[in-house]
Amino acid sequence: MSNDKHIIFGINGCIAVLSSRKYKISEIIIQNGSKAESDGQVTRILGHYGGHVKFLARTQFKQIYKQYRTQGIVVHFNAQIETELPSLKDETGNKCILALDRIEDPQNLGQILRTAVCAGVDGIIIPKYDSCKITDTVIQVSQGAFIEIPIYLVNNIHQALEQLKEDGFWIVAMENGVNAKDWHKIDYKGKIVIVAGSEGRGIKKIVLDNCDFQTTIPMQGKTNSLNVSAAASVILFERLRQLSS
Amino acid sequence: MSNDKHIIFGINGCIAVLSSRKYKISEIIIQNGSKAESDGQVTRILGHYGGHVKFLARTQFKQIYKQYRTQGIVVHFNAQIETELPSLKDETGNKCILALDRIEDPQNLGQILRTAVCAGVDGIIIPKYDSCKITDTVIQVSQGAFIEIPIYLVNNIHQALEQLKEDGFWIVAMENGVNAKDWHKIDYKGKIVIVAGSEGRGIKKIVLDNCDFQTTIPMQGKTNSLNVSAAASVILFERLRQLSS
Repeated sequence: MSNDKHIIFGINGCIAVLSSRKYKISEIIIQNGSKAESDGQVTRILGHYGGHVKFLARTQFKQIYKQYRTQGIVVHFNAQIETELPSLKDETGNKCILALDRIEDPQNLGQILRTAVCAGVDGIIIPKYDSCKITDTVIQVSQGAFIEIPIYLVNNIHQALEQLKEDGFWIVAMENGVNAKDWHKIDYKGKIVIVAGSEGRGIKKIVLDNCDFQTTIPMQGKTNSLNVSAAASVILFERLRQLSS
Repeated sequence: MSNDKHIIFGINGCIAVLSSRKYKISEIIIQNGSKAESDGQVTRILGHYGGHVKFLARTQFKQIYKQYRTQGIVVHFNAQIETELPSLKDETGNKCILALDRIEDPQNLGQILRTAVCAGVDGIIIPKYDSCKITDTVIQVSQGAFIEIPIYLVNNIHQALEQLKEDGFWIVAMENGVNAKDWHKIDYKGKIVIVAGSEGRGIKKIVLDNCDFQTTIPMQGKTNSLNVSAAASVILFERLRQLSS
């Protein structure tokens, strides 16, 4: 896995990257007279990165970053965001891993990362092939959430689930199958993996066959189905509700 | 309120608009050899709209609609999507209205519409000023959800809530105030309005002061907060969970 070049925009995301101290910062670009320049938190953090900060006049800055909503701050950094899936055999208590089988849309992946962090998920699994990776759009949409959660890149979701089962996890598939229970009738306590499938194609059959339970969110409307990131929000916070009661 | 020109792309959204028979269709454009052209459902529906269908060669179609993910179908139609808020005094049982105080981002508004339909919400309120309207991006992101739910355009959210209170609704604000209860400790049965605020600015003070309850979704992460459409999903499906149990 490589130490890739990335870019992040906007005050919240940039502060998250800079204050994490996890990544090699190559350049911080600030637009003169921008919201970021006068932001107290930004100013404090820039003190630690003196040599890397570059101020640009508004016209120059806009010329380079015009299509983005930057709030006047852009950070270029190097990071190896994905890691390998370690053994989780020794983990105890309530643990939740979210496995994403072939999510294609970077907006969805970014939103899911953000929601997963908010919902206290312990790690995300994405497959190496046939899936959106942690692109700069994903980084941006997630508002820096990738910093707070391990992202495990695996060759094969099926094998990863086999390993997690051996490590003591129960596997719950988000899938509207005949035996699927309503989302709030599943017990999310203990060590569990929640599997979400591709926007158009759902979960691969070989993966689905390996799951212990299927859960579904019945739809009230006639034509619409829930977006995958909205469905993940519903299930991850139902888990938190159960854990808190 | 005007009968505006709109455009929608993609098989699901276009089928939803065409099969609803609610709108004046001005033109249906199909790309020769596309997924839409060979889709059985599309073919059946086109039979009802003979005079309005126009087939274009791939190069010509791509030239006009290149930046969109159309699946080879585009529908131009006229619709008055927003309506006025009627009296809901005579409504009984479990009713839910979602009031959106100054949502700015069309992606968020579109996703919220889609989620609201899936969660069986009975209507959406948006203010005339200082809010994203039902633009073509919203229509697209919602995947045609606007067809299935009344969208009430009001001069003033504050006054609309006053009216709904007189009509027997309880008002719940999604807001992290000192007296806010966790989202699953609110009783969503009966006639309720759920109020969601702007992405950056939250709910206006005058609106908030008028709400009966405040509810919050505690965050597990350090830096992140939940996207407003994700938060709406969590709360709207917690309501459904309560209604089903």
